[in-house]
Amino acid sequence: MTNNNNDLLLKERAAKVIPGGMYGHQSTWQLPHSFPQFFNRGKGGHIWDTDGNEYIDFMSSYGPIILGHCHAKVDEAVAQQLKKGDCFNGPSPIIVELAEKFCTMVKHADWSLFAKNGTDATTICVSIARARNNKSKILVAKGAYHGAAPWCTPAPAGTTKGDKENLIHYNFNDIQSVENAINEAGSDLAGVLVSAFKHDNIVDQELPSADFAQYLRKRCDELDAALIVDEVRAGFRLSEGASWELLDVQPDLSAWSKAIANGYSLAAILGNDKYKKAARSVFTTGSFWFTAASMVAASTTLDLIRSENVIQRIEALGETFRTGLKQQANSYGIPVSQSGPAQMPLILFADDSINNKERGNLFTEEAMKLGLYLHPRHNMFFNGGHTEQDIKQALEITDRAFLVLKDRYY
Amino acid sequence: MTNNNNDLLLKERAAKVIPGGMYGHQSTWQLPHSFPQFFNRGKGGHIWDTDGNEYIDFMSSYGPIILGHCHAKVDEAVAQQLKKGDCFNGPSPIIVELAEKFCTMVKHADWSLFAKNGTDATTICVSIARARNNKSKILVAKGAYHGAAPWCTPAPAGTTKGDKENLIHYNFNDIQSVENAINEAGSDLAGVLVSAFKHDNIVDQELPSADFAQYLRKRCDELDAALIVDEVRAGFRLSEGASWELLDVQPDLSAWSKAIANGYSLAAILGNDKYKKAARSVFTTGSFWFTAASMVAASTTLDLIRSENVIQRIEALGETFRTGLKQQANSYGIPVSQSGPAQMPLILFADDSINNKERGNLFTEEAMKLGLYLHPRHNMFFNGGHTEQDIKQALEITDRAFLVLKDRYY
Repeated sequence: MTNNNNDLLLKERAAKVIPGGMYGHQSTWQLPHSFPQFFNRGKGGHIWDTDGNEYIDFMSSYGPIILGHCHAKVDEAVAQQLKKGDCFNGPSPIIVELAEKFCTMVKHADWSLFAKNGTDATTICVSIARARNNKSKILVAKGAYHGAAPWCTPAPAGTTKGDKENLIHYNFNDIQSVENAINEAGSDLAGVLVSAFKHDNIVDQELPSADFAQYLRKRCDELDAALIVDEVRAGFRLSEGASWELLDVQPDLSAWSKAIANGYSLAAILGNDKYKKAARSVFTTGSFWFTAASMVAASTTLDLIRSENVIQRIEALGETFRTGLKQQANSYGIPVSQSGPAQMPLILFADDSINNKERGNLFTEEAMKLGLYLHPRHNMFFNGGHTEQDIKQALEITDRAFLVLKDRYY
Repeated sequence: MTNNNNDLLLKERAAKVIPGGMYGHQSTWQLPHSFPQFFNRGKGGHIWDTDGNEYIDFMSSYGPIILGHCHAKVDEAVAQQLKKGDCFNGPSPIIVELAEKFCTMVKHADWSLFAKNGTDATTICVSIARARNNKSKILVAKGAYHGAAPWCTPAPAGTTKGDKENLIHYNFNDIQSVENAINEAGSDLAGVLVSAFKHDNIVDQELPSADFAQYLRKRCDELDAALIVDEVRAGFRLSEGASWELLDVQPDLSAWSKAIANGYSLAAILGNDKYKKAARSVFTTGSFWFTAASMVAASTTLDLIRSENVIQRIEALGETFRTGLKQQANSYGIPVSQSGPAQMPLILFADDSINNKERGNLFTEEAMKLGLYLHPRHNMFFNGGHTEQDIKQALEITDRAFLVLKDRYY
C-alpha cells in the first residue's frame, strides 16, 4: 500500500450521503482503520483499490467470486446476452436451461426458483416449508447468519417483537439441543434451517458431523418437517453438488446465492418434488428476478466449476496456505486457530478475545499494507483465479506480518 | 405472431423444473393463453419472443425499461465497468457518485442506501421508520402492492399469523380512513406507507389528491411518524424528482427500484437527515448490493432521463395513445376505462367484471397476435425507446382488436 488518499476522500464524501458512510457486510467499520473501503478493479485472484494498490484477494467479494475476478468466459457470455437484452416481460430460455442444470448437478433438486439475494432464498425456503405443512416454527442454529431481513437480521434495530417469534434455537452439531427445540415447537414445526457448515463470525468454524446431518434428516422425516440447508455462503465451494452430499444427506430445500454466478446478482432456491406444490403456492417475485445476463453467468459458471476442477484446485491452494501459515505460526510461537474447509478458511488468534481482535487486526493490517487482503473475523474464500504463485507470495507476506506481531506481543 | 412453437416447448420443459412452469409477476398464467412466456431480445420500444415474433412493447418489462431496451449509452457504460469488474470486497466509487446524484435530483433525499429488490427498499424503509421512533405499526392502503416478502405479499401461502400483525389499513385518498387507522395504531405508530399513486391491479388507477398527500405529511409530523412513499413502480416516470414533488409534499423516506437503472438490478432507499441515524442503526445487506455495474447503469440512466426529456416524451406519447384509443372505443361504442398517468396507463373494459376479464383478454390477445404487447389487468409503461411511429402502429393494431371485440360482444 503506497497511500490511501483517494479512499479517505471518498469516505468523506460518502459520509455525507450514505448513513454511516457505508453499511452492511462490506462496511470497513469492523476492519482495521486503514483498510480500503472502495475498489476499482479485479482480475483473477487480485483486486485494486482506488489508490491503485494491488492486493492478492482472499475474500473473493465475501464469496461471490468463485472462478476469479473478470473471468473471460463468464464475462463474454454476459456481454453476448447484454447485446440481446437482459430484462424483458418474461424470462429468456436460459431460465429453463439453468433450472435443468441445477437439477442435474444437485442431487436433491427436482426444481428451482431464482431470486436476487441470499436472504430472498432463505426466506422463500422458510415460506415454502410453512406452506406445505401449514406450520410456523423454524429451528435455527444459535449464532448462524441466514440473511438480513427482519426475521433473520442479527441486529435488533428496526425489528418488531413478532419478527423472530417463530424461530427456535438449537446449537450446531448438538443433537440434544435440536431435540429440545423440537419439543418446544410441539405440533407447530415447519422445518429445520441449517447452514452447510457452521461459519458464524468471530468463532471457529465447524463442519457438520455425519451423525448430526443424518439425525436432522431422520427427525424431519419423522416429523413431516422440511430440512432446509443454507448453501448461500458454502454452495459450490465444497462440492459440485449440495454440500451435504458429502455426508450422503439430501435436504428438502436449499438456498443458494454468492458463488453461483461468479459475482453476478443471482440467488436460487432448490427443492424436491415433495415441496413443488407448496413452492408453486407461495407468491414471491422481484423486478429483476428473471433477467437473463445473471442466469447466463450462472450457467457458464456452473460449467466451469466442473470443467476447470475449481473445487479441487481451491481446496489444494487452501491447504498449501494453511500448512504454510501453521508452520510460520509455530516457528514464531504464536498460537493461531485455523478452522473450516481449507478453501474457506477462518484465521483467529488464540490470545485475542471475542471482543478484542487486536492481534488479528494487526496481522491483517500488516498483510494488507504488503498487498494481501485477509479478514480478521470473517471466513475467507479462495477462488479459481488464485495461483500457486499467489499463495507463495501470500505466505511471504504473512511471514512478515507474523514478525510484526511477534515484536509487538510475544 | 406467426407461431409459438418454441414457447410451447419451453413451457413444457419449464413445467418439469420450475414450480408452476413460471412464478411471480412475469408468469403468464394470468394472461390470455397464447401470450408468450419467454423472450429473446429487446431493442428500443420493441421485444422479440423465442419464435421470432416482434412486439411493440407497452410493458417495458413491468417498469424497469425507462429509456428503451438495450439503450446504447447505458449498455456501453455497463460494458466499460464490467471490464474492470463488478463485485469486489467493497463498492466502487460509483456508489458515492450515485448517492450524490439521487440527493441532487430528489428534493427530500439527504442520503441513500442501495439494494436489489423493490421489496428490499420498502422493507428497509419500514425498518428505518421503526428504528427511529421505536414503534411498530405501519399504515398501508388496502389493496396496495409493496412487495412479496411475508409482511407484504398479497398471497397468504407460507406466511404466519404474525407477519402482517403490524399493518393497519386505510383507503387511498380517503382522509377519514387514515384518521381511523391512526386511532387504531394509538401510541405505536411508526409510519405511513403510501404508493406514489394508486396502481393496484385490476381496478382503475388513481392519482393522489394534493389534500390527501398534504394531510399525510401534516399528520406524520404531528405524530412523529415517518411518511414513506413507495416509488418502486412510479419513480422517475412522473417526475425527475420524487413523484410527490408535483404536489409539493416531501416524504421522510422513499423506496425506489424498477426504472432507476434501465433494467439493471438495483433498488434505492432515500431519506432525510431526520432518519439518517436510524438508517445507520438498521443492519441490512446483500451479497450483490454493492456491485458497480448496476450503479453505473443507474447513474447513466438518471442523466439520460433528464438530458433526453424522457418523462415529457413518454407522457406525450402516452397521451397520443390514450386519445387515439378513446376515439376508437367511442366509434365502436365500447366502454373503456383508461386510468392513471398517460405514461403508465391501465386499460379496463367497463363490461368486464373484476373476476372475468374476457373482453380485456380478447382485446390484448388480438393485439398481441398483431404485434402489440398490452396487459389486460396490470398498468403498462411507456419508455423512451417508443416512437411516434410505434404509437401510430399500435393504434392501427388496437383498431383491429376493437373490431374483433365488436364482432364478439357488441
